[in-house]
Amino acid sequence: MIILMKKGCSQQDIDGIVRLLKEHGLGANLSTGSQATIIGVLGDKAKLGDVNLELMDGVEKCVPIMRSYKLASREMTPEGRTVTVNGVVFGGKRLAMIAGPCAVESEEQVMAAAQGVKAAGGRLLRGGAYKPRTSPYAFQGMEDEGYRILRRVADALDMGVVSEIVSHDQIDVACRYCDMLQIGARNMQNFRLLREVGRSQKPVLLKRGIASTIEEWLDAAEYIMSEGNYNVVLCERGIRTFETATRNTLDVSAVPVVRERSCLPVIIDPSHAAGKASYVTPLALAGIAAGADGLIVEVHPEPRVAMSDAAQQLTTASYQALVRQVSAVAAAVGREV
Amino acid sequence: MIILMKKGCSQQDIDGIVRLLKEHGLGANLSTGSQATIIGVLGDKAKLGDVNLELMDGVEKCVPIMRSYKLASREMTPEGRTVTVNGVVFGGKRLAMIAGPCAVESEEQVMAAAQGVKAAGGRLLRGGAYKPRTSPYAFQGMEDEGYRILRRVADALDMGVVSEIVSHDQIDVACRYCDMLQIGARNMQNFRLLREVGRSQKPVLLKRGIASTIEEWLDAAEYIMSEGNYNVVLCERGIRTFETATRNTLDVSAVPVVRERSCLPVIIDPSHAAGKASYVTPLALAGIAAGADGLIVEVHPEPRVAMSDAAQQLTTASYQALVRQVSAVAAAVGREV
Amino acid sequence: MIILMKKGCSQQDIDGIVRLLKEHGLGANLSTGSQATIIGVLGDKAKLGDVNLELMDGVEKCVPIMRSYKLASREMTPEGRTVTVNGVVFGGKRLAMIAGPCAVESEEQVMAAAQGVKAAGGRLLRGGAYKPRTSPYAFQGMEDEGYRILRRVADALDMGVVSEIVSHDQIDVACRYCDMLQIGARNMQNFRLLREVGRSQKPVLLKRGIASTIEEWLDAAEYIMSEGNYNVVLCERGIRTFETATRNTLDVSAVPVVRERSCLPVIIDPSHAAGKASYVTPLALAGIAAGADGLIVEVHPEPRVAMSDAAQQLTTASYQALVRQVSAVAAAVGREV
Amino acid sequence: MIILMKKGCSQQDIDGIVRLLKEHGLGANLSTGSQATIIGVLGDKAKLGDVNLELMDGVEKCVPIMRSYKLASREMTPEGRTVTVNGVVFGGKRLAMIAGPCAVESEEQVMAAAQGVKAAGGRLLRGGAYKPRTSPYAFQGMEDEGYRILRRVADALDMGVVSEIVSHDQIDVACRYCDMLQIGARNMQNFRLLREVGRSQKPVLLKRGIASTIEEWLDAAEYIMSEGNYNVVLCERGIRTFETATRNTLDVSAVPVVRERSCLPVIIDPSHAAGKASYVTPLALAGIAAGADGLIVEVHPEPRVAMSDAAQQLTTASYQALVRQVSAVAAAVGREV
Repeated sequence: MIILMKKGCSQQDIDGIVRLLKEHGLGANLSTGSQATIIGVLGDKAKLGDVNLELMDGVEKCVPIMRSYKLASREMTPEGRTVTVNGVVFGGKRLAMIAGPCAVESEEQVMAAAQGVKAAGGRLLRGGAYKPRTSPYAFQGMEDEGYRILRRVADALDMGVVSEIVSHDQIDVACRYCDMLQIGARNMQNFRLLREVGRSQKPVLLKRGIASTIEEWLDAAEYIMSEGNYNVVLCERGIRTFETATRNTLDVSAVPVVRERSCLPVIIDPSHAAGKASYVTPLALAGIAAGADGLIVEVHPEPRVAMSDAAQQLTTASYQALVRQVSAVAAAVGREV
Repeated sequence: MIILMKKGCSQQDIDGIVRLLKEHGLGANLSTGSQATIIGVLGDKAKLGDVNLELMDGVEKCVPIMRSYKLASREMTPEGRTVTVNGVVFGGKRLAMIAGPCAVESEEQVMAAAQGVKAAGGRLLRGGAYKPRTSPYAFQGMEDEGYRILRRVADALDMGVVSEIVSHDQIDVACRYCDMLQIGARNMQNFRLLREVGRSQKPVLLKRGIASTIEEWLDAAEYIMSEGNYNVVLCERGIRTFETATRNTLDVSAVPVVRERSCLPVIIDPSHAAGKASYVTPLALAGIAAGADGLIVEVHPEPRVAMSDAAQQLTTASYQALVRQVSAVAAAVGREV
Repeated sequence: MIILMKKGCSQQDIDGIVRLLKEHGLGANLSTGSQATIIGVLGDKAKLGDVNLELMDGVEKCVPIMRSYKLASREMTPEGRTVTVNGVVFGGKRLAMIAGPCAVESEEQVMAAAQGVKAAGGRLLRGGAYKPRTSPYAFQGMEDEGYRILRRVADALDMGVVSEIVSHDQIDVACRYCDMLQIGARNMQNFRLLREVGRSQKPVLLKRGIASTIEEWLDAAEYIMSEGNYNVVLCERGIRTFETATRNTLDVSAVPVVRERSCLPVIIDPSHAAGKASYVTPLALAGIAAGADGLIVEVHPEPRVAMSDAAQQLTTASYQALVRQVSAVAAAVGREV
Repeated sequence: MIILMKKGCSQQDIDGIVRLLKEHGLGANLSTGSQATIIGVLGDKAKLGDVNLELMDGVEKCVPIMRSYKLASREMTPEGRTVTVNGVVFGGKRLAMIAGPCAVESEEQVMAAAQGVKAAGGRLLRGGAYKPRTSPYAFQGMEDEGYRILRRVADALDMGVVSEIVSHDQIDVACRYCDMLQIGARNMQNFRLLREVGRSQKPVLLKRGIASTIEEWLDAAEYIMSEGNYNVVLCERGIRTFETATRNTLDVSAVPVVRERSCLPVIIDPSHAAGKASYVTPLALAGIAAGADGLIVEVHPEPRVAMSDAAQQLTTASYQALVRQVSAVAAAVGREV
């Protein structure tokens, strides 16, 4: 941590800070510039415990210089981590593809979507059983019955199940039916939920909150990892900005930023970012070109009758076309589908 | 709902929509403008069930025209609602003031803060027992022991307790010790939590999410009210924008907007918005001048040693000065403290 | 400036930086923390000229610690500056009030508005002669004829004229007719315009850009002041955020932030922030309560027929009511109208 | 336009609107829904002139349904437009590549950069002669001498010149030396400048403002086109959001949105979006994969000594590597470099 002193602070102020640091077993390195004095704190700042330096006389501000996540950092695992779900590896040369309907509506609907996904080479099936919806009067999902439908369909087609979990007391049941637990954007800072999935060993797909910085997202991953579950895959799904032409603004830059700062695999959700089917493929290709490790795409056998987020779901035929285009771009950047 | 047809759509497209609406028991009102055709849907759009009109041939877009919340709306209760906590009324002529430390650290600390708050006329004590923190390595609060400390101090001083709840399985214990349950910004769309507090009759202080629109916030209130608990107080605490001079950007306009659209009382949290003690009083005064029904302010007996959010906590003396200034502004707008 | 070295940088990297600083006449103060090395640069960093330290081997990042504006800073003029226009002082105990129609439409319209404003004690008349409009097909203002109308009306009523200037080659004509030149939000970083008004001695009303940080705004003021014109008044008029309930989000916190960092007076434009007449008064009161030095309010004799921004203009009667309420709040915070 | 009436408005209110529309030669189509009445306006709403319907009794709000730009729209030119600069076509199968230093610093520097760009197949040289800078004390560019240097270097290498223009009175001189005029993000709504470049026939590179919606950007293009200059190329260069890991947030979705709504070519500026050299290539690839018609990239012979924006400039070697990768991705999406 660096302590920037106020212009015109007294020597007494500076001495006070240095003495306080010493009392807590920390060193101080003074740097008296032409315009301001800076004190570099030497040692583990955790030793300061409950002392708040920013309120000491003469202090302008304190600048933390270390990131708050460790296990999720690139420094900790420079070679990067991989996460394997049903034989699909996230973080390897081959891209990981997840697809399926936004919401589970019936076994027929899930089966039709899954067959289309499988025909395009997919081995991971997504589907929402619990749907967090803005209004209490909107369709909330089939809940546990949704999990069971996903499992039956996936078993029939030899696929893995990825589904959202919205509360920590669903973990046991979700673990029974799912191969990967999704934490949605709204729950990215539901710390209780993060800790509890961290105590399981199930792979976790951690979506970025719509107004979360990349640093906060990696801190959220750290919550899971700090409990012992290192099987975390990050998912960029668009952030909230002033632009309304798309449902959210896909922050494609998050891909290279995450790859630089973190050891965790990162995939893209072009469907929620776009909010409109015709933008899904361009965004998917952009994500892969930027270096993402995979995609999660909403596919519905008949989007016109979908019960949620219909505008952004692809038909199975459109999805198959998307996979062909993704294959070409993947090859161009040294990856494969 | 209004359906805007694409420029150049065919008569067949229009007929298709009208027929489909009729099949679902809905009327259609065609408006053929010089540049586009618009179809007004007559009747309750819920009858459409799983049909997604936006994917019908010829449709450009669908514009919902009704708000999704009903119980929380001003139309439903034009005279406005009040919520009473420990004899303090939110939504009346008198402002409701909540104050206390960011986090409960010890009984001595809470007592010192509470005495300062009480000396300024305060009857509601806040304090964080469960602290949602961005990093898993930061102080997470004293948890249930924190609730108990708040209760003992409040009982000794004849005050009410307002404290945050972060998970639905804490409701029973929180209800035992608290007079008002706070839902924090990160949990504003934790729908499970909203529903469960809706099943209690405890007053709820619902903070706005940092990237939530006012409409989403009112939808969140609707989740609570739709379960039967109408004792909801809204709290504006700053939204996330590009500006970094303050911790968040206080959206003071939310006060008149909420008062126009909703029947619920709304208060201001100047401490989390500001992130810096010297801005707290100006923001508090701004909120009251704009018509807020009260304030929630962080007060610490010795901010310099606070374990969380120290920079934004007021001393008890500063808080007493704030209350004096608030009184003057309140009188200017026809309210009182 | 502080240089943060990469974790694991070599001694050679550090020596390279220190040597380079020395070559440019600068000192270096090394701070070797438990986790990273920090180099404090001693001396005037301008000596570095064209050297970019961030690209040196081993450098993680450089953190500037000094603000880039000087003349506009509070440090330079701790007692604050005042700007006087037609006898009205911005920055004194008395609030400065500017009001008038959004756009000049006719002499009758301006006269009617101005009489209403004057009846409420106003001495400064606003009106748009040049209107920057998003679409080329929208009404663009009466241009120079608009300035002349404002002047005639103001002279008749013994008022001052405040009007927008959108290009540097209008300065001469604008100076002839106006007492204060307004730089609109879209031109806040039109540096050519800033410099040229800086070469006049006309008071300038500098609106904040809709996506400009407070620091950028003060840098823009510095452009004007660096040319010798210190008569700058800042105007907060709302920033662009994700919220759409209001036209912009009034950043009321900007008032205390500007007062802390800058010596310049700051006023509030509640009309453009609100975008809706019914929110104008609450926002005006909030701004004054937060410490603003005045207001600029849109008033139209008949808003229903206004040619631009009609929804946000007050009638003269509403404006007079606003002034009464502002007087009460002003008194509560030690100011007067 | 659609007029949404307030719930509970009177028949008299509705009749008033209908009569007013008729008086202005417009038709009205009433749609009386179960919850609200909607009036569709039939005819050209321009006939309303100065009437503001939103202030009529009983009106809740007015929803415009037509876009405000026409010449820039896709509908007007479904096949899309191309713009040719020095033989390079924007909007064709082949990508258009612009590269060169952020700022012109000397003829040697520009020559070295240009040779590197040319070696990578580049035929369009960029360089800033006029640099809009946040602080008045930062390097402001070599101005007209910068244009002359660019021209001499470009002539020597048979390249075209793309350079920024910051004021309308520079157009003549800029037209003499440049082949394409760049309007920077800060000037995207400098309407005077837009109109004046619209009166020349020089190709224009119109950058998106950092807080401008796509609709506002297309309106800005319309300003240029409405004066007769159809040679407009759009450039997405990142928008301002809450995320600070990158200088701006590249809105890659803008590419498919623009392609759908507008007939104009659109390119990507990965350098300003990223703000950091290591993110430039991933963002460039993302843009091309999403369907952009080209790139503008900052290249400096020795970024370490660059006078502005050094952190984001590529070396000529890195640029050549970027072009190779772009070629591969371009081929994957049916384009070529």
